[in-house]
Amino acid sequence: MANLDYTPLKEYKDVEIQLGSTELKRGFAKMVAHGVVMDVTNPTQAAIAEDAGAVAVMVLDQLPADIRGQGGVARMASPDAIKETIETISIPVMAKCRIGHTQEAYLLQELGVDMIDESEVLTPANEASHVWKWPYTVPFVNGCRDLGEALRRIEEGAAMIRTKGEAGTGDVSEAIRHMRMVNNGIAQVVGVKDNAEELMILAREMKVSYETLLNVGKLGRLPVINFAAGGIATPADAAQMMRMKCDGVFVVSGIYKSDDPENRAAAIVYATTHWESPDKVLEAQMMVDETLAMAGKGISRMADSDKIQTRGANL
Amino acid sequence: MANLDYTPLKEYKDVEIQLGSTELKRGFAKMVAHGVVMDVTNPTQAAIAEDAGAVAVMVLDQLPADIRGQGGVARMASPDAIKETIETISIPVMAKCRIGHTQEAYLLQELGVDMIDESEVLTPANEASHVWKWPYTVPFVNGCRDLGEALRRIEEGAAMIRTKGEAGTGDVSEAIRHMRMVNNGIAQVVGVKDNAEELMILAREMKVSYETLLNVGKLGRLPVINFAAGGIATPADAAQMMRMKCDGVFVVSGIYKSDDPENRAAAIVYATTHWESPDKVLEAQMMVDETLAMAGKGISRMADSDKIQTRGANL
Repeated sequence: MANLDYTPLKEYKDVEIQLGSTELKRGFAKMVAHGVVMDVTNPTQAAIAEDAGAVAVMVLDQLPADIRGQGGVARMASPDAIKETIETISIPVMAKCRIGHTQEAYLLQELGVDMIDESEVLTPANEASHVWKWPYTVPFVNGCRDLGEALRRIEEGAAMIRTKGEAGTGDVSEAIRHMRMVNNGIAQVVGVKDNAEELMILAREMKVSYETLLNVGKLGRLPVINFAAGGIATPADAAQMMRMKCDGVFVVSGIYKSDDPENRAAAIVYATTHWESPDKVLEAQMMVDETLAMAGKGISRMADSDKIQTRGANL
Repeated sequence: MANLDYTPLKEYKDVEIQLGSTELKRGFAKMVAHGVVMDVTNPTQAAIAEDAGAVAVMVLDQLPADIRGQGGVARMASPDAIKETIETISIPVMAKCRIGHTQEAYLLQELGVDMIDESEVLTPANEASHVWKWPYTVPFVNGCRDLGEALRRIEEGAAMIRTKGEAGTGDVSEAIRHMRMVNNGIAQVVGVKDNAEELMILAREMKVSYETLLNVGKLGRLPVINFAAGGIATPADAAQMMRMKCDGVFVVSGIYKSDDPENRAAAIVYATTHWESPDKVLEAQMMVDETLAMAGKGISRMADSDKIQTRGANL
């Protein structure tokens, strides 16, 4: 794996050393690398996820597919559900806060979750900015659609990045698009890293600092772990994302909206682990019955106003 | 004077120490502070400027007022004119290069000028970026219309800033507007300097790094010297700009397009030095005959396409 060293905003270094250091927060993110994180809404689902070999679970009151259908305001999960999950299983527990809802994030930290997902799947709380994540002891993961969005979140203190994809659809095409955008962005930066004028032009387009972009150019990758998320429904989807150089996958509605959740969860973990071996990915794919897969919703027939991925994207 | 310490982009620190350090380049800029820099097109004008007490001269082939009227491509002054001026007078000599014309800037450095003005008064050479100024031994001054523009130039290595105003008009109103924009921008940054989310929102609006803006918040001013320029024609104009917290003034066409250049140059220097004493500014104003002032061109009747100040402003 590439070197992930990265100098965070100097100003916050002292704060971090007292609380949760950047090394510590990014270290936790590295621990889940190469694995599968699964969303769960109850202890039964959490147990399925743990048994299937998930590296962590994400506690939600409702699956993204249901949130999408419902149309109400989606908020952080209830404290009781989070506590119960933490007590039930032994793997790390993540939970989502709304975009820009600093206080929900502090509640999740108090509850002792292992990572916070500041997620566009919930209803955004602040149209002007995301949570300033440096002062927290708990690490954050944020979604992105391209390199600029990923780096803006990292400059705010995110210790891990994931693609946004289009959650709750079972359509992997948006996750693939976002991973391409990140990878192509990195290739562009690497290509101009010795040309200060062009690098500064890109930095201003992305609204990030020159130093942040210079660091990406040197590393040839993001300075933090990058997972794929949004629409991953089959073992082949998961292996496809790994093939596109992501560091692991989030699988959510794709498992519990299928009619074979136990099998499917295990098969997706297997395919993610062995993505470099087409025979093993085939084995995983044959573990699941495609007639039982999430019916889903194709992105091409979705109105822009129904898309979740645009939330917070211009920040 | 406020502390002007500022950490430049770390990456270039080593380069600077070998060539012209940031301290050295900004140090030269501080030497001209509280003074008047005058544009000159020939040794006669240079002698007038020196005798009048200018702290430096700026060599041009043509005055902005004439460039404005002519409509051709305006480039750096001829090497002979620059050499002759350097040999004729004892005060520092500046010269202009076109925006983004890296090679003209290297020629001026070779000629031994004391400072380069990367100036919108000349025809811009690069529509995408300014000169990357860190590797030069000679300090640069750049124009700005607001705080974001000033800080983008400083991030590129400018050791001094000036307002753009509207050169060659004899109308001070644009210089006043730009100085207000810079001052109000600084006040806004100082006001939110302890609120990380709001400071980051401003940084992204201005397309500068969070650290650069945090530094402005701490200093309560730009990290480099800031002069007024563009349309200053009378002693009262110069004193007005000093009253608005600038660190000195550039006076250009206003002197040589009047019919009393010697008197006017000396009076403007006197008013700039004693701007805090209304009686002395009045004395300076009475040294000149307003019927002999530059006729000028009011900005309010000028088409946007004729304005010079917009050149490079969106970079």
